Formats: sequence, C-alpha cells, structure tokens
Amino acid sequence: MAAKIIRNGTIVTAADTYQADVLIEDGIIKQIGLGLAADGAEIVDASGKYVFPGGVDPHTHLDMPFGGTVTADDFETGTRAAAFGGTTTIIDFCLTDKGKPLSESLQKWHAKADGKAVIDYSFHLMISEINDAVLAELPAIVKDQGITSFKVFMAYKNVFQADDGTLYRTMLSAKELGAMVMVHAENGDVIEFLVEKALAEGNTDPIYHALTRPSAIEGEATARAAALAELTGARLYVVHVTCAEAVKAISEARTRGVDVWGETCPQYLVLDQSYLALPDFEGAKYVWSPPLREKNHQEVLWNALITGQLQTLGSDQCSFNFKGQKDLGLGDFSKIPNGGPVIEDRFSILYSEGVAKGRLTLNQFVDIVATRNAKLFGLFPRKGTIAVGSDADVVIFDPTVERTISAESHHMNVDYNPFEGIRISGVPESVLSRGEFVIRNQAYVGIAGSGQFLKRATYKQADASDSGRKEKVRQQ
Amino acid sequence: MAAKIIRNGTIVTAADTYQADVLIEDGIIKQIGLGLAADGAEIVDASGKYVFPGGVDPHTHLDMPFGGTVTADDFETGTRAAAFGGTTTIIDFCLTDKGKPLSESLQKWHAKADGKAVIDYSFHLMISEINDAVLAELPAIVKDQGITSFKVFMAYKNVFQADDGTLYRTMLSAKELGAMVMVHAENGDVIEFLVEKALAEGNTDPIYHALTRPSAIEGEATARAAALAELTGARLYVVHVTCAEAVKAISEARTRGVDVWGETCPQYLVLDQSYLALPDFEGAKYVWSPPLREKNHQEVLWNALITGQLQTLGSDQCSFNFKGQKDLGLGDFSKIPNGGPVIEDRFSILYSEGVAKGRLTLNQFVDIVATRNAKLFGLFPRKGTIAVGSDADVVIFDPTVERTISAESHHMNVDYNPFEGIRISGVPESVLSRGEFVIRNQAYVGIAGSGQFLKRATYKQADASDSGRKEKVRQQ
Amino acid sequence: MAAKIIRNGTIVTAADTYQADVLIEDGIIKQIGLGLAADGAEIVDASGKYVFPGGVDPHTHLDMPFGGTVTADDFETGTRAAAFGGTTTIIDFCLTDKGKPLSESLQKWHAKADGKAVIDYSFHLMISEINDAVLAELPAIVKDQGITSFKVFMAYKNVFQADDGTLYRTMLSAKELGAMVMVHAENGDVIEFLVEKALAEGNTDPIYHALTRPSAIEGEATARAAALAELTGARLYVVHVTCAEAVKAISEARTRGVDVWGETCPQYLVLDQSYLALPDFEGAKYVWSPPLREKNHQEVLWNALITGQLQTLGSDQCSFNFKGQKDLGLGDFSKIPNGGPVIEDRFSILYSEGVAKGRLTLNQFVDIVATRNAKLFGLFPRKGTIAVGSDADVVIFDPTVERTISAESHHMNVDYNPFEGIRISGVPESVLSRGEFVIRNQAYVGIAGSGQFLKRATYKQADASDSGRKEKVRQQ
Amino acid sequence: MAAKIIRNGTIVTAADTYQADVLIEDGIIKQIGLGLAADGAEIVDASGKYVFPGGVDPHTHLDMPFGGTVTADDFETGTRAAAFGGTTTIIDFCLTDKGKPLSESLQKWHAKADGKAVIDYSFHLMISEINDAVLAELPAIVKDQGITSFKVFMAYKNVFQADDGTLYRTMLSAKELGAMVMVHAENGDVIEFLVEKALAEGNTDPIYHALTRPSAIEGEATARAAALAELTGARLYVVHVTCAEAVKAISEARTRGVDVWGETCPQYLVLDQSYLALPDFEGAKYVWSPPLREKNHQEVLWNALITGQLQTLGSDQCSFNFKGQKDLGLGDFSKIPNGGPVIEDRFSILYSEGVAKGRLTLNQFVDIVATRNAKLFGLFPRKGTIAVGSDADVVIFDPTVERTISAESHHMNVDYNPFEGIRISGVPESVLSRGEFVIRNQAYVGIAGSGQFLKRATYKQADASDSGRKEKVRQQ
Repeated sequence: MAAKIIRNGTIVTAADTYQADVLIEDGIIKQIGLGLAADGAEIVDASGKYVFPGGVDPHTHLDMPFGGTVTADDFETGTRAAAFGGTTTIIDFCLTDKGKPLSESLQKWHAKADGKAVIDYSFHLMISEINDAVLAELPAIVKDQGITSFKVFMAYKNVFQADDGTLYRTMLSAKELGAMVMVHAENGDVIEFLVEKALAEGNTDPIYHALTRPSAIEGEATARAAALAELTGARLYVVHVTCAEAVKAISEARTRGVDVWGETCPQYLVLDQSYLALPDFEGAKYVWSPPLREKNHQEVLWNALITGQLQTLGSDQCSFNFKGQKDLGLGDFSKIPNGGPVIEDRFSILYSEGVAKGRLTLNQFVDIVATRNAKLFGLFPRKGTIAVGSDADVVIFDPTVERTISAESHHMNVDYNPFEGIRISGVPESVLSRGEFVIRNQAYVGIAGSGQFLKRATYKQADASDSGRKEKVRQQ
Repeated sequence: MAAKIIRNGTIVTAADTYQADVLIEDGIIKQIGLGLAADGAEIVDASGKYVFPGGVDPHTHLDMPFGGTVTADDFETGTRAAAFGGTTTIIDFCLTDKGKPLSESLQKWHAKADGKAVIDYSFHLMISEINDAVLAELPAIVKDQGITSFKVFMAYKNVFQADDGTLYRTMLSAKELGAMVMVHAENGDVIEFLVEKALAEGNTDPIYHALTRPSAIEGEATARAAALAELTGARLYVVHVTCAEAVKAISEARTRGVDVWGETCPQYLVLDQSYLALPDFEGAKYVWSPPLREKNHQEVLWNALITGQLQTLGSDQCSFNFKGQKDLGLGDFSKIPNGGPVIEDRFSILYSEGVAKGRLTLNQFVDIVATRNAKLFGLFPRKGTIAVGSDADVVIFDPTVERTISAESHHMNVDYNPFEGIRISGVPESVLSRGEFVIRNQAYVGIAGSGQFLKRATYKQADASDSGRKEKVRQQ
Repeated sequence: MAAKIIRNGTIVTAADTYQADVLIEDGIIKQIGLGLAADGAEIVDASGKYVFPGGVDPHTHLDMPFGGTVTADDFETGTRAAAFGGTTTIIDFCLTDKGKPLSESLQKWHAKADGKAVIDYSFHLMISEINDAVLAELPAIVKDQGITSFKVFMAYKNVFQADDGTLYRTMLSAKELGAMVMVHAENGDVIEFLVEKALAEGNTDPIYHALTRPSAIEGEATARAAALAELTGARLYVVHVTCAEAVKAISEARTRGVDVWGETCPQYLVLDQSYLALPDFEGAKYVWSPPLREKNHQEVLWNALITGQLQTLGSDQCSFNFKGQKDLGLGDFSKIPNGGPVIEDRFSILYSEGVAKGRLTLNQFVDIVATRNAKLFGLFPRKGTIAVGSDADVVIFDPTVERTISAESHHMNVDYNPFEGIRISGVPESVLSRGEFVIRNQAYVGIAGSGQFLKRATYKQADASDSGRKEKVRQQ
Repeated sequence: MAAKIIRNGTIVTAADTYQADVLIEDGIIKQIGLGLAADGAEIVDASGKYVFPGGVDPHTHLDMPFGGTVTADDFETGTRAAAFGGTTTIIDFCLTDKGKPLSESLQKWHAKADGKAVIDYSFHLMISEINDAVLAELPAIVKDQGITSFKVFMAYKNVFQADDGTLYRTMLSAKELGAMVMVHAENGDVIEFLVEKALAEGNTDPIYHALTRPSAIEGEATARAAALAELTGARLYVVHVTCAEAVKAISEARTRGVDVWGETCPQYLVLDQSYLALPDFEGAKYVWSPPLREKNHQEVLWNALITGQLQTLGSDQCSFNFKGQKDLGLGDFSKIPNGGPVIEDRFSILYSEGVAKGRLTLNQFVDIVATRNAKLFGLFPRKGTIAVGSDADVVIFDPTVERTISAESHHMNVDYNPFEGIRISGVPESVLSRGEFVIRNQAYVGIAGSGQFLKRATYKQADASDSGRKEKVRQQ
C-alpha cells in the first residue's frame, strides 16, 4: 500500500482549522505538515477543500427485521451509501431475543456485516431483560468482544420495551462494566393505548403516528431515564432526541451533575410534523419513532447542539421502500415500518444547515458528526479525528458545490429520500477508510467486506487513558 | 533561529491526545508526525511529558493603579511568572479615564508593556462612558489597533461603574464593530450601601468584604447583563463568575439563545469565604471582587465547566503585597486593594484539580486554559493550540511531579501566595514562545521585551473565517 | 333538636377572622351575627376560642387489610379519634380487586362504615384496571353513588400498581365523568428491584424502607403523572407529597396550566428519615410510603403550602400496632405494614406548627385543613366552612392550651403515636357534627353510626355551581 | 341611620358562596342569616344577585400631575366612577418631591381627597431618596398616620427613579417599620436610552412607546427587586406586572421563600400591544407603563392569577383625555401622558373575563378584586369581605346583564375608554359604602366628601392579629 499525501487542504478537527498536508501510510496518519516531501507518495490535491475526519454514525439499523419485513439496506448498500455521504464508521444495533443467549444474537449480527461492510463498524447490544444468564454473558461481551454500549427501549410495548426495573438493573450492570446505557425514551404504555384508541376511532392515516406519540411523553421518559441514571450513577445516552421537553430533561440533569448525553438526528433538525400529513400516503415516508415534531422544536434542537446540551448526531438509518414496505401500513398507520434512509445525508445536512448557514463552527460540526461519537463510544483516537496515529479515515469535502438531495441520485437501496429536493451546500468528494479510497471523486471504488469490526473501549477505559489515570469520575 | 523537534511527547489539543514529534521552525509549528527526521534540528525530548499549547490568560491586571497603590507585578515580573506557569499569552485590561481620549489610555498601556513583556500580550479596553468622542474613536481602535473587546463595570460605584444605559450603548456599538462586551457583574449601588453600613456599624475586618457583596447580587447583575445582551444581540462575556446564581443566569440565557459566555477563576474553584475570616488580617490576602463564596458554590462552578455552561478560566491576576499594600485596609476592609497573584498558578491548578482529580478530560483542560480563550478573543489559530501553522507557543508538562505551591518558590513579585500549601500534580517543565524557550527545565531563559503586542480579530471576523463565510450568526 | 348558639368565639374561615355568634338549628348554620338573641337556644360560650369549621381529612385508610393484617383502627375508633382531633369529615379509600365488580368492593366498604362512623364520610375508589366491565360501572358510581374521585397506584408492584396506560385511560374516563384522578406517585418498578436487592444484601432494617424509595423516583413519578394529566386534560391530585422533587414537578405543571393539585401530610412536615434508623426496631413505627425524607425537604413542603404550590393536608391514616403488626417486618423491612396513626393529630399539628409558629395565617390553616379539601372533593359548601346554610360541623378550639402528644392520651386504637413527645399549642375543645356535639370539653359524647355517607359532586358540577355556569374550564 | 337587610342574595367571599340575608346597622354588617327578621329595617331585595364585598383598588392615581398636565379624574369623579364600578376603597399614590418633607406631600394629597371622595381611601407613599430627614419622618408616618406602604420607581429616569441603593435602604427601613415596599419594575436607564434613540431615528408614533420598553427589562427589574427583597427580608409588592418574564421572576422568588407579591391590571389581561399601532394617533389611548404586551403574555398572566403566582388586580387608574392631554405626545410618543381610565371597569372586567369565562371561581374573583388587597395593605377585616363586624361595603351584582363598555356611558371624567366596545357580563347594580348607598340601581346617590381616609395596619400588625400572636414570620 503506497503512501499518500493529501496536499494543501484545510484540515478541520473538533478543535482546529488549518492548512497543511497529510501523509498517510499503513492506513494511518503519519505526518501533518507544511510542504511535506512527496517521497514517492501518491499526491491527492485538496486545494480549496476541507479535510475532515470521516463521520462516525453512532446509530444505524442495517439488515434489520421490523414488523414482518426487513430494512431495505443491508451492510453492503448501507455502508456504501454511508461512505458516499462522508461516514467511515457506523455503530449498528444488535437486536436480541428474550430467552436466547446474547452471543447468539451477536453472531447473527456479525454474519450480517461480515464480507459486506465497506467501512468499519461496531455494534451496540440491545438489552430487554436482566437475569442470571444475561448477567453471566455481559462481562465477556464488554471486555473481550468490545461491545461497550447497551440499548434499552422504553417504548414498543410487547416488542422491545423493558420496564423501569430492567432499565435500572441494566444501568447498575453497565456501570460496573464501564458500559454506556442508551435509551429510546418514549412512554410505550401510553403510546400503545393512544394507538389502539386512534385505530378504534378510525384514524388510520400516517399523521396519527405523530399524534399518538406526543412530545410530552418523550420528555417524560427522558426525565425518567435521567432520574434512574442519577440514582445508579450510570452513564446515559439518549438516542434521537426530538423535542424541547427532552432537551430540558437532559439539560437539567446535566446541570445537577448527572452523566447524561443526548443525540439528535438530521430529520428532526430540518423536517417537521406537517410532512406526515402529506396526501396519498406520502406521510408514511416520514414515519420515525419518536415522530417528527412541530416546527418550533427545531430551533430548540439547534440551540442545544450549539450550547452543548445535546452533543451528537446519529442517522437512525432504518430504510424501508415506500412501495412494498411502507405501504404495509396503508389503512393502519401502526403497521408502517418505522424509520427512514438518512445514513448518506447525515454528514452533509449537518454541514449545510449547520456550518454553511452559520449556526455551527466547523469545529463544532466535526465534533458532532465524528469526534464526540468516537469519544463517547470508545473508538477514540483511532476514529473520529485527523491526528497523527489515528486511522486515516478522511473526507475530502468540497464546500463550493451546491446540489439537491434526491432518491434519483442517492446510493441507498431504497426508493425515496425524505430530504428529496432540499438544496445542500458541499459534497464529500473523496472518502478514505484506513488510507484507502472508498469514494474517489464521488465514485465508489471500495470493496465489500473491507470494513472491519471494531472492538470498543469501555467509557471507563476511555476516561482513564484520557486523563492518564486509572479511572476517573466522568468525561464530558 | 534553528529548528527544533519536540520528540515523543503526548500532544494534547482541545480535541486530540496523541503521541508524535513536533517540528518548529521560524517560530511556528511546521510539522507533526511520527519519527520526524532530525535534519539538524535541535531535539527536545518530551517522552512521558504532555505537549500542551501555551496557556492563554484572558484576564490580567499588570502595572495597574488601584486605590492609591499599584499592583506589585508589572509586565516583566507578571509575564515571567505567567511563563513559569505555562501561560504564553495574556490579555490585560487597559483602564481608561472619563473625559480623556481612549487612545491616550491605550498609549499608556502600551508603554507599560513595551520592552518588558516576555510573552505575547493584548489589551481589552475599559469603557465607562459612551459619547460622541468615544464613538468616534472606537472603530479605529477595533479595526486598526485590533482591540476587539470592551470591559464594562457594573460595580465600583463612583470609580469604574457604568450605568445600564451605558452598558446597553456599549453593547450596541460593540455589536456593530464586531467587538465583545465583557462585564464585571455585581450590583455596585447595593454594595456601596452595604459597605457604608458595615463600616458605620464598626465591621471593618476583611470578612466584611465578602459579607457586603452577597452572591445574590452577582446573580442579579449577571442576569441583567444577559437581558441587555438579549435585547441588543451583542456578544457578552461575564468575567470571574463565582456563584451558583450567576451560573444559572448564564445557563438560562444560553438556553434561550443569548450569545453569552462565562469565565471563572482558580480562586473560586479551590478557595472559599472562610479564608477571609483568617485571623491577624490574613483574610486580606483573599480579598477579590467578587469575593470568595461559601464552599457549596465550588461544585456548581466545576460542573459548569464540565458541561460547558462556563467556558473559560482567567486568573484575574492583580497582585498586591500583604505588607505595604493589603494593609492599607487595616481597620477598614474597603481600603484593602482588591485582587491577588494567580497568573502563575492558573494553568497548574486547573490541571491538578481538573484533570488529575478526574473532573476534566485533558482536552477540556486545554480548551478551558488556552483554546477557547484564543477563539473567543480573536487570537485563534495563531494562539491556543498545537497545530501546523500556529505559533509555537508550547508547554512541555511533566504530570508526574508532585509539588506544593508557595510564595517561597513562586516567581510573582509579591510576598504571599493565596494557594500557599496546596499540593499540585504536574509542572510546566519547559515553555516556548514562538519557538523560543522562555522557561527551560523550570529555569527562566527568556528576554524582557521579547513579547509582542497582538492585534486581535473581531468575533465576526473569527466566525467568518471559521465557517468559510463572510459573516455568521454566532459562534459557540 | 334544640337550637344552639356558639357565643362570642372568633370565627375563622378560609377568608375571614371575626368575632360573632353562631346560631345552629336543624344541623346547619342558620345565622351568624353580633349579639344574637338566645330565644331558647342552648348557649355555648366560646369566648377566647376559635370557631373553626370541622376538619376534612381527604385521605384515610380505616379497617383496611394490608399485607396479611388489617389496620388497627376501624371506622368507629378511627372516626372517634378524628373527632377528638377536630376532624368531622373523612374520605376513605375503597380498595378494589381486579376482575371483581367495583360495586362489590363499594358494598364491602359501606359495610365497614355503616353503624360505626361517628362523623360523616365518603369514599374514593381505587382503580387498578380499565376494561369494559369497569367502564360500564363507572358512570353510575360517579353520578348516582357520588363517588367522584379515583385513586391509581404507580407503586406497590404486583399488588396495587397500575401501568401508565391504565393511568392514562383512567384519566380519560375520569375527565369525561367529571371525576378527579388521585395518584400515589412512586416508581414501583424501581422500588421493587431496590427492595429485592437490599434484602438480598442482608439489609433488612427499617431504615432500608427509606433507602429503597429515593425521593428522585417520587419526583419522577409525579412528573410522569402530570405529563399524562396535561395530555388528557384530566384533573390530577397527588396524594402524600413528601419531597422537593415532587413539589417542583407539581409547581412546574401548574405553571404550564396543567390542572394538578398536591397534598402533603403532617408526618412529612415534622418528622424525617432519621426516625427510621431508631434502634430496637423502633424505626418501624415510622414506615410510610413514600418514606420520611431528609430534613431539608420539610422547608420546601412548608413553603409550598405557604405559596399554594401544594394545597391540602391529608393524614394518610393507616394504623398498625407496633406489637403484633409492625413487627411482622422484623428481619425484613418489606414486611412492615406501611402507615401510621395520624388522623387525630393532623388538625392540631398543622395549627401548632403552622399558625402558632407563624408560618401560616389562620385562614390558610382553615383552607388547608378543611375548606380546600371540601371544595376539591365535591363536598362544598356543605362541608369545610363556617357559613350560613352549611352543615354545623364546628370545632371550638382553645389556642391557649399547651400539651404533649402521646399514645397514653390519644384516642386511636393503636399502641404508639409517631408524634410522641411533640409539644403542641392548642386543643379542639368541643366538636360538633351537623349541630350535635361529638366531643364536648374534650370528652366523647358521640354515637357510633351517627356519621352519614356523603355523596359528592363531580368537580365539573362544583365548578359550574361555583361560577353560576353550566361548566367551566378549571377551578384552582 | 336605619338598618338595612339585603335579602336573599348569593353572598360571595374569598372562601364562601351561599344564599342568606345580610343585616346592616351602623355602617357595619351585624348579622348574616337565613330569614332574618325585618324589624323595621329597610329591605333590599337581592334575589338572583351576587352580594360581593366592595372592590378594593390598590393602585390609583387621581388628581395627579404628570408631564405638565394633570389627570382628568380627581378624587370626586374618580371615586364616583369607582363606586359605579363596584369599588368601595382605593389606595392612591402620594407623590413626593426630593428634598421636601414627606409630610408636606401627604398634606397636599389629603387636600386633594378631602371633601371630594365618595368612598373610603388611603395613600401609599412614594420614596425617591433615603436620608436622615426621610428616616426621621417615616416612623410617625407609618405608625401614627397609618401609611404603611412605600412605592419606589425603578423607571422614569431623572423624574421618579431611585437607584438600587435607595431601593435597598427603603426596604431595610420598611422592614423595620412593618411597611411594605412596592416597586414599579422596569429598567429606567435602558428605557431612557431606547426612547432617545427611537426619537433620534424619527420613530415618534405611539407604538414606539411599547417598542422602547421591552418585556425583558421588566423581567430584569422584577428579578432585581426580588433579589434585594431576599437580601433585606423586606416584603415586596410588584405593581402592574405585564409579562411572562416578570411572572417567572416573582414565582421563582416565592419558591425560594422570598416574601414577594404581584399585581396585574385589567388592561394587561385583555388588551395587547397591537392597540398601540392603531392609526390616527389612536394608539396614544393605550399608552401605559409598562406597556401593553404581545398577546401571548395574557395567558401567562391569567394562569398566574389562577395558580396564585400573582395575587391582586389594580386599575393603575391614571386618566388623561385623548383630546387635549394624550395629544401632547403628537409627534413625540415620549410626551404622551402615561396611563388610562380603568378604575370603573376593573371589577367588572375581572368578573366577566375571569368568572363568566370560567377561568376563576367566584371566590378567587373576590379574593383578587377585594380581599387580598385589603389583607396585604392592612385594611382587613374592616374592608374587603362580607363578614360580621366588617364595614358594610357591599356590591349587589347582577350577573345576568350583558352590556358594552363605552365612553358614552361610563362615569369617568375622560373622553375615551380603552375597553370601548368590549362585551361584558354582569353589572354592579347597587353599591354601599359603610351601609349607605352610593350607587342604587345603577344611579349615583352618593355624597362627595363622605369617603373617609383610612389608616392602615402594618403588615406585621396584620400578620400578628391574624395568627393571634405578637409577630410572625410571614403572611401569604
């Protein structure tokens, strides 16, 4: 593998913005400097371009069964689209089944990704019950397999939902092991009733998906999870925060010293509830859980990213075709598969709406789209930054291109794009994973299966290495 | 000037922590890499050491007259001590006189620093009145002289204090010019009365300095300044935040989208009000304004730094000898010169209490002690980071040393140290300013007068360059 | 029944304090005036005494089975003690069994009270499931039987606890019927685990009752119930609020316009968690759910009563003998019957700690101990005030007596008093129920069975009559 | 003076609502009862009517000079209109002049009212400076003259405005004397500049009155006053609260135990800022300070009255004719005399918008419009209630009448009514002051000069009598 020099780009990290050359060798960044000698390296000109670390998407669902169907994108199409969009690492959710060994589920998830992923990946592990068998398995999963984050659902009653006792116990175990607890925070009991009621009243259109999941119960569940984190001392990460109530819950908890973090998603920043009311069942394209909210929540979410009340952006990638999948919910919104294709546009939407529109600095952008995710999930400094010694996961980004998002041109294996028609500033021109081009001049040059599984550090290991000490109180 | 290579240290920025060599040439950082070729450069071994960017102290008072005396440290002794402590840039406050041209005051301040400073420096400009003459001078001061921050006092009635109308007008002008407004936030009217009352009642001891400046009126004034910033759209920076009430005011303002930032100081993080009650007038050593607070405020301040509700640390360096200066206030606490010597220990206290005690990550430490200050005050990326192209202001820091702060061993020109006896982890072993050693192996090797005045960018220029655009809404 | 004139007392209502005579005839108040003519009426001298409306205790458990035993006080001993203490109306909780008709439970409760109660009474109805049978029964229970408040438990997992869907549905039904929903707000799932864990770790003493029910999860559950009330538009009443977190949840909900009300109890105002740590199993006497809290919560509760963030005081009377009942929990705190004897001292403790200590006005006292309860629960103006046309439920209260609470002298059928040894100002000297003495000069002169069951108005009826309109938005 | 019996009305107090007869003799209420014997008394039929206590207006400006003119209404026309509107007591503001004896100002104010007032009245005393002369006068003014409330202006720079030191000192003195401190809470420094700026930019229309007094600085000043009350322990009453920010400041202060109370006015409940933009200078009719706000603040104010975060309603009566007075501000909004005619409609608007529209109960209405004001200002129980022994200040109110407010029909001596055209439910049919009709069947039958000056109790006296003790902590 020949060395490469990315010449003359503007390197951006979560802290810095400066012009320099980057020497890549053996898949890692070897040198950064002014006028690096070529010495036989391949020269990649990046004049006028940003050199960003590859995006880290902490929230994807690829090749996942849901409601009798399976996501349209698998680990090959999904990670290829991610790479097109500037993302070089994903962390996917490994679903588990009550009563079955967790390791069995993990094997299944490995099988989905093996030989298919074109970028590196890791898994979060869903926890829906705590019993002796589960407790027996967890230490090895965390320490040997490097699966250092557990996901608990407070919604999807009778499917994924765990009760508060289970959440509490998961937190206790996670804390002991140094693992992070992630929650989907909505009150599933209330939702179940509201859905039943809506259907019983003949309210079957997609808009009722939103109307049966009010923001107040996302706020409620978020506050509840934060209260449990406060009591247990666990580290909590709230996925897909959508509303003012949940931001308030997270912010207040952080203010009283609780170790809680929040993620939002591009869809909540730029789309709103009105999309679910589009005619001809078009609203089904916009069915996520939690649902899109009234427009006024957007400003709260942006301000939360700006001030650090929320810290990360995930795609919650979970694609289903409009024809053949979303239409399972024709006549019954509760049967619409939840989720949408976002893995490809997460990075660019945040740049365009965040940086280009003046809401975020370049450094905040990098932190939110890559660095913070790598840090929180035990992948740093290998992933998430442009620094000597880190994996050469690099995005050469052209900020001057104006383009329009469209299913016509996207690379996800799905027949629509929820951001269809939105004008975007900037494009990931070339993308490298561990020093090799996956995307070159907007063309795919990667290899299915070249993506590697990443064992992750526990947050306690991360904290410790970070401060040069054995273990520390908290990392923010 | 020969090139230097700092070999094998652990480089820490506000985002990254990694091991590499740093090549310095012509006063700037030229390359960072693994195994950089010596090529005749001087090799400085940093194995086992941290390589931090030099600290940026945004809040110093050197050679400043106050209450009939003048600070014990001038720009020579003060900046030398700063360098010993790991700080390579300071921003000092240029006091002004009502009715006199601002430029006259600035000249006076330049004269104080010229030929004396051993590290680079800039000035904030105090504003105590807005009139046509002031308005006429400001544009050139900001644009030509690079003085891009104005300080307004809400306290010190009949001395420095400006009324709210003046603060409002300063904000309007500052916003137009892209300058930042800094406030000392205490209610001076109330303090004046409380001081008079205490003295009239025969309460003359140092502890009454604290008792006549309750935290509630710092919180009040902070909220007031934030309300004015909200109305004017100005960028506000609250200096020396000491208490829960003020943190709440800043945090709430940020939550509603106000462009406000907060600084605290080491003394408020590790000392408390009980020090003012020390016998034998010893309390006078601990007279700052705002005063040290009850101990419970410390945890709130730390959590605010951790969560980003506060963003920076200043020293508020303002040293007076215990004998001969502080004792002006014997028998009348209101005559005790306000302030203390902190410029040397700011950096190490934050490392030791923050990082070594597990409250902050290394990256947060660098951000708070250097990077964020450089960014907020228009010095970035020249100052405040270890990045290619930046000034080679570098601290080689040995985290393994344990030591005790003492006036015996400190380098400030003052006869006591408020942190006397406090055990500290780590020491700045060597310090470079623009590539030249000022401190080498804890010995001074600098040159008075080698420090240069720094013209600073406006925050609008900083924001614009940061996002590759003309001007943007806000930077956080 | 001869007329009576209570002569020369100081009449106190929730609004007024004035000296006058009260003429009672046919069980109601006929006239209030200066120098009322005797006209053959019995004259009761009340010079130097307060003439209060009889207390309304909205929260009692008499003759109630719990954990394999039954409360020490039944409707006879309990209501007699209540009368001794100045309370002339109680509302007891009718427990129900899943799967059985509600009417069956109500009949059982009527049978407990019939022929025994010496003062008037009504019932709240516990709801633990919503299904077609329950929905079919409720309208008649509310409209015909005058049972206009439903109690839902968020705690006591696998015993009384209802899930959030059931709570939500109960709120919807209640709102439709004009009934109020009451909640016991603690997170039962978490408690269940904490209790199991404590016991498994050998922590069996009474203090673990408190330690396994932290205040954070009372706050959490309170906020959750308020969120559901906000969504449903139901009127919510939170029983036995004990802590700052719950007060905050209620206060914030009221501020955003939610129709929520809060009750506290004497034990939370004057006792604290340290009582549970008393040696020799003495702590068992102080086992309530929610538990007594750290002392600092008391001030928050008092201030909440003062400012109207909380509105009422219940006794949560639920007495068990120390010997023979509480000791069921020797060696296992979870088996200690929850509750204590408070029905007799509720009124006097609030007077003594509230009015005599200067926290509350006389009018606030009457409102909290009587009027507000009558209003909220559909008994007003029949009960809860001294006004022409109201039932002559009257307490002649001597504020000059100082006394000590003791099981030696109390009238509850239980072998200890949790307020043992507390000094109290004032005593209910004589108490009348519908114009007849039940207590005369501190001696019992009542008749078991003279108490009548009270059908209550719905809150919508109460609101409507209150504003002279059909139905109105809310009553506060 | 013959006795009167008001027969068969529905008596409403702050606590009670019931049907009974009221016997009035010697100007006071002698008996209340069912079927009172006539005994030669004049019978006034009140069937189907409410019998309310006469309104207590705590905030009027009659015969007051302002900006070179004087209010259109004096004590005769003003109190007559008040009586027409159901108000039987007013507390007017006695302005004072710096450097002149307070007693001189009080004499002037007595002279204005003497022989003119048709209902009873008292005065608040404006304080604009604290010095030895002022401190010497205050005790007698409070104790002998019964002037127990001081008003401090935080706005009207260079006219009425006191600085924070003066406010603080006023609070200290007031607390010592048992007097209440009232504030007009707006930041006068900022307003002065904003007004100058608007005028300099040619923005002279009435709407600029609102735009130069943003709600944020009312909130700011309110929080500031509350902070000072917290420090001094004084009782604070914030007049004319208009906005969400001020409600938040008051509510948060009460929550942390500060003794602060808030008043709003009818204009802020039913009018909004858009009125100031009416063409043809019509906006001048709606110039109050603080100004009318955006409509969304109304809901916050209503909820604050409902939940007790605000407690009272004043008229802030301050009438100026549109022709000849308001037009002083043609071409310069800052010259428009501030204020409007509200004294007559305060009572009915609160009834109609509050009770008839279902926001308030009848009891809350009476509390807000009468009882609470009498209690807070030391007039209770003489004024503000229907109770035996109280002054027979009574309103016989017909709730069935629908009418339209209009300057055509109102009784204030001013040429417009700001509520012109608003439909109102209910009318004060007859009004008695100390047992004598002032208004009878909507016709004036009063006598100028029959109104008496009322010496008021201090709040400490009120609290003490209220709890039967010498002095108590606080009254809420």
